[in-house]
Amino acid sequence: MTARQRRERVIARDIAEELGISVSTVSRAFTEKAVIATETRSRVLAVAHRRGYRPDPLARSLTTRRSRIAAIVVADITNPFYPEVLAQLIERLQERELQTMLFSAGPGRNVDDSLPTLLHYHPDVTIVLAATLSSAMVAACRQAGTPVVLFNRYVPGSEASAVCCDNHAGGRTVARALAAAGHRRLGYLAGQPDTSTNLDRLRGFAEACAELGLPEPLVEEAGSYSYEAGYAAAKRLLRRDRPEAVFCANDILALGALDAARRDLGLQVPEQLSVVGFDDISMAAWPSYSLTTIRQPVPAMIDRTMEQAESLLRDPEVPASLSLVPGTLVRRASARLGATA
Amino acid sequence: MTARQRRERVIARDIAEELGISVSTVSRAFTEKAVIATETRSRVLAVAHRRGYRPDPLARSLTTRRSRIAAIVVADITNPFYPEVLAQLIERLQERELQTMLFSAGPGRNVDDSLPTLLHYHPDVTIVLAATLSSAMVAACRQAGTPVVLFNRYVPGSEASAVCCDNHAGGRTVARALAAAGHRRLGYLAGQPDTSTNLDRLRGFAEACAELGLPEPLVEEAGSYSYEAGYAAAKRLLRRDRPEAVFCANDILALGALDAARRDLGLQVPEQLSVVGFDDISMAAWPSYSLTTIRQPVPAMIDRTMEQAESLLRDPEVPASLSLVPGTLVRRASARLGATA
Repeated sequence: MTARQRRERVIARDIAEELGISVSTVSRAFTEKAVIATETRSRVLAVAHRRGYRPDPLARSLTTRRSRIAAIVVADITNPFYPEVLAQLIERLQERELQTMLFSAGPGRNVDDSLPTLLHYHPDVTIVLAATLSSAMVAACRQAGTPVVLFNRYVPGSEASAVCCDNHAGGRTVARALAAAGHRRLGYLAGQPDTSTNLDRLRGFAEACAELGLPEPLVEEAGSYSYEAGYAAAKRLLRRDRPEAVFCANDILALGALDAARRDLGLQVPEQLSVVGFDDISMAAWPSYSLTTIRQPVPAMIDRTMEQAESLLRDPEVPASLSLVPGTLVRRASARLGATA
Repeated sequence: MTARQRRERVIARDIAEELGISVSTVSRAFTEKAVIATETRSRVLAVAHRRGYRPDPLARSLTTRRSRIAAIVVADITNPFYPEVLAQLIERLQERELQTMLFSAGPGRNVDDSLPTLLHYHPDVTIVLAATLSSAMVAACRQAGTPVVLFNRYVPGSEASAVCCDNHAGGRTVARALAAAGHRRLGYLAGQPDTSTNLDRLRGFAEACAELGLPEPLVEEAGSYSYEAGYAAAKRLLRRDRPEAVFCANDILALGALDAARRDLGLQVPEQLSVVGFDDISMAAWPSYSLTTIRQPVPAMIDRTMEQAESLLRDPEVPASLSLVPGTLVRRASARLGATA
């Protein structure tokens, strides 16, 4: 779209002026659950139809603001799941003429520290990958007019909108499929302890174990999400207890666990040990690993992220929401599984 | 540094005003090989010393321009080498108070297309990862005042400065080490055909084979840099000819080649086949692969990139230069190697 075409495009302000109402009333007319008189909504929709106005909040923000920047805060770009997500996100943002500005929080660094610099660029949208931010920072972003969406994390009770895979349901599915193959002593390799992904996957897993009458899962803390952490934690768990199956908080941990089981303990996988991951990174499909895992539905999660950003642009006061998108069990060679139905 | 301190900092303009000379003359005084009268240089250095002025071109650009943005153009973020480079680059740029703006050229897409949008943000420096750009675009960047440095690629005869591992020397080292272990029939798994990395690694490898009196290497084209491409190309090469050793244009190809050799052809590695890669991505060290490879000296390459950017900021007319940083042979279990001395 050229600058000239952009100027000629009908925007919400044109509709508002014609009807003598506010721009936010125009927005509400296009917002499904917004409070607005039926008659007002009809008038807005009629004028919008006649003048060819269609609300596209992210695109609209481009005509009224100047940055065209989407800020993405990443905590850990070396876990292969995130470059895969990032490549897809950049693609989708570029389609909307938004450029990606990347802020690295670094493992163990506070995302809050990046926010003041980030806000300086007036991003049209801010996406936080695999990290959380404080309520004070969420409020600062709202005030600055940049919608914030957390991706693959949420903070219970927070004002920040978030999009996650349904990690709790994924954990339940894994427990049921392992139990259906006759496994009784199950282990869980935990990732970074305070992350919602780690907590929800364990919660779902342990809950289903209890319902199925299995013993409580043996938990070993890897502490962080890395191959090396997974390798070391699996070695400890397998030497101390000998679970029949290990569910790992994510794939990169599971790859480390597989190598530890085979190389260090000489176990046959899946005959002597079943290993299951979470994410479905590209390496999970490599024949050296052939990892059974829960696939995160990344394209659908990105759809939800865009929708949440748009809804926040339409109405900055919209309450924070958490979108959970179901994952899919991908059966490969690293685990003996039964039916889950 | 606070905004106030930044204003109080002595900048090149202060020195130029005091001496009644141009800012570029001040810059030349601090540029080793610049043409400048010895007397003028002495006067500049004396005043600079008295007033506490020290040239820090990237930092200086922050006081005189507004963007504080480092643009990074990436062609392929899913090859694990680049997230590792990117994480280190972002870290180093953030230390200099530069924020990273990421432009994705996508595999097979022309980087030139990103440049007009990129220049719109007036980046203080532009780094192009694993991609090249046309001479016209290099000229456009110079005119727009953003220094451009290519990382891990160069264009022969181009006006763009570049930093690469010494890929030619790396290829020579691999051939010598394989020959020293008695290998005679060597294969080369080629990556994206037009990339300087691919061409230089092959050139060095073939050159050393000729010097050592070995047959010309058997070349098989993978076409691109991915695990799947490496897997398929290795299968073709190993079924058609049966080299004793395969040097792969990079690690991700080599991981695919290792899996193809072991799973599809049932070969013992390294007893029946030696496999060598290039990059030293983190997976190369994983025991399922234990890949012998040439390590790219990423921190040193980033140092050179920063130096080149600084030198271009000091003097935009400085001729383009190519920095080659030597790699290191990392001996692991995937290849039988002899001494290379």
